Amino acid sequence: MNLRIPGPTPCPPEVLAASAKQMINHRGPEFAEMARRIEAGLKQVYATRNNVLVLTTAGTGALESAVVNTLSPGDKVLSVSIGVFGDRFASIASAYGAEVTRLKYEQGTAADPQEVAKALREDADYKALLITHNETSTAVTNPLAETARAIRRSGDERLILVDAISSLSALPLPVDEMDLDVVLSGSQKGWMAPPGLAMASVSERAWRAWEQAKMPRFYFDYGRARDSAASGQTPWTPAVSVYFALDAALQMMLAEGLPAIYQRHERIGAYTRRRLQEIGLELFADPAHASNTVTAVRVPEGMDGSAITRTLREKHAVVIAGGQGALTGKILRVGHMGYVTEADIDGAVEALRVVLTSGTVASKS
Amino acid sequence: MNLRIPGPTPCPPEVLAASAKQMINHRGPEFAEMARRIEAGLKQVYATRNNVLVLTTAGTGALESAVVNTLSPGDKVLSVSIGVFGDRFASIASAYGAEVTRLKYEQGTAADPQEVAKALREDADYKALLITHNETSTAVTNPLAETARAIRRSGDERLILVDAISSLSALPLPVDEMDLDVVLSGSQKGWMAPPGLAMASVSERAWRAWEQAKMPRFYFDYGRARDSAASGQTPWTPAVSVYFALDAALQMMLAEGLPAIYQRHERIGAYTRRRLQEIGLELFADPAHASNTVTAVRVPEGMDGSAITRTLREKHAVVIAGGQGALTGKILRVGHMGYVTEADIDGAVEALRVVLTSGTVASKS
Repeated sequence: MNLRIPGPTPCPPEVLAASAKQMINHRGPEFAEMARRIEAGLKQVYATRNNVLVLTTAGTGALESAVVNTLSPGDKVLSVSIGVFGDRFASIASAYGAEVTRLKYEQGTAADPQEVAKALREDADYKALLITHNETSTAVTNPLAETARAIRRSGDERLILVDAISSLSALPLPVDEMDLDVVLSGSQKGWMAPPGLAMASVSERAWRAWEQAKMPRFYFDYGRARDSAASGQTPWTPAVSVYFALDAALQMMLAEGLPAIYQRHERIGAYTRRRLQEIGLELFADPAHASNTVTAVRVPEGMDGSAITRTLREKHAVVIAGGQGALTGKILRVGHMGYVTEADIDGAVEALRVVLTSGTVASKS
Repeated sequence: MNLRIPGPTPCPPEVLAASAKQMINHRGPEFAEMARRIEAGLKQVYATRNNVLVLTTAGTGALESAVVNTLSPGDKVLSVSIGVFGDRFASIASAYGAEVTRLKYEQGTAADPQEVAKALREDADYKALLITHNETSTAVTNPLAETARAIRRSGDERLILVDAISSLSALPLPVDEMDLDVVLSGSQKGWMAPPGLAMASVSERAWRAWEQAKMPRFYFDYGRARDSAASGQTPWTPAVSVYFALDAALQMMLAEGLPAIYQRHERIGAYTRRRLQEIGLELFADPAHASNTVTAVRVPEGMDGSAITRTLREKHAVVIAGGQGALTGKILRVGHMGYVTEADIDGAVEALRVVLTSGTVASKS
């Protein structure tokens, strides 16, 4: 099966083999050694000196952790959303009692850095900015470096909480250089491991916020995670087999080298967009901000998006994603993060070409 | 390595092999079929017609889920604690603003069913009882059936929220017969799978409480999990490789048969207690309520508990657990749940005998 959704992504054989290792004591020296090696690897990829905590949860739990560890009920926050995952980050903050102002951009477009910095500047009561780096639902990458620069340039010290779930590990995101406070990612994306673990870098500024934050929390508490990490442990039983997998995947990533990984994603992103356009499909995202981890194209006029994905799966063993939320049935999404080559893209694009031209997919009446 | 801690427990080869399967689309038909098969299997083990939800989290997250989905800040709850995990359940409720009354029993003893029912009856304001079935930290199994019967006999319809993390799948726990509202378990215990997934059965009474519950929640929301489960999905990306493992483990469990599994744990529990006493160790738990998934013995007078566990690990490849919290250094715990035979116990006990008698373990001065 050519799994071309934007996560879970295919795992290399070495990573799958590591997933099958027998359980070990999560309070013992072997686990501690692995947890420390993983933390060191994560810090390299994050390009940070901050703590990078590993939580047993899905990405959505990671988003929740950033909210509950830094904010109090009633806090005003600015949410920048360019799609489903930006909306979700805002909804989590609302659910925990934050007063959320939503700055929304049309789906397929990116946020405007100057506008975001200005919106934040204009209300001194905002405690934090919530922003998505790579919006998986629209295949758009926000200009995060420019946004962070526009904010910090004026000496603005408010918290910047970043959903980097589908970007970090595949796209450059130097956390300390950008001066970001909490940056979240998920094992099942560019990290080439199965889902089950999420990562969160926590800046000194975020730790100060954590001391004051009054939202209720227990499982996701960063303080407990930090204290346990100091002795190579986790406060609660970790997803051990996913740790094994992430450990193996990180070794592969560091062996390949981060510049090579970023170049590969840039190259395959451009390749995927070109190949999809060559078979007559129209890109959904603003080309200036097209993601290098996932590409979205419009479902051709009169065709049924779900019939296309179904036929691809059933007849061609190719799995791509449709649209989410308001984009259901309107776009198709092809993932190209992590363990992926041009050959995988060729296979998916060729199958898509056959499906679109064979007449086997019923048009919508 | 003979891994004899009370979780993570060793996984059978079939389960490890399943863990190494390549990723699939968590929104596709193959995942849906597996999720439905797992839910059906879980319902058999839980002996319930209630929804049994699967969450990507550790057991502590499962405890948190029961609290936040059924209670509101300010709600009075009665917590019965016989150890670390009972205390934790209470702490979670407190963290989310419940007003918790703690009914604590001495470590090593079980709760008194009549006393618990009476304490609940005496305050009509209690919304829920929080109780641990099997207390992993002291190796005691609470008389849950008697407790539930004592409560329900008087027509008491308050919520009974049960931590069955280290019991369900290994000890009989017929949820509907006992009329329990939320019952939590974890994949890394008797289920013979790696950690990363937790299960929660939710009764009709608990669903009515969920409709009124005002504690903030998002990631752990049962409503979203139920709605997604209706189409064989999860609201957030699930730990796919742990699903593969749990799926394989459940098939093995159903093939062995639940009565056989319960008998095996009863037999191995008794065997472990007998063998440990034969080498001169004193059981920690009240024999009338000794757990059949984990056994605790006192560290012999004048010996260093952590030196014993370290020597066992380094010289004999046997991994057992020490005590937690106030019992650190005072007890040793041997796990015997899930994929375990008498031969595994023999190996651990013989190694322990050698360590205790060889004089290689420094006595505490």
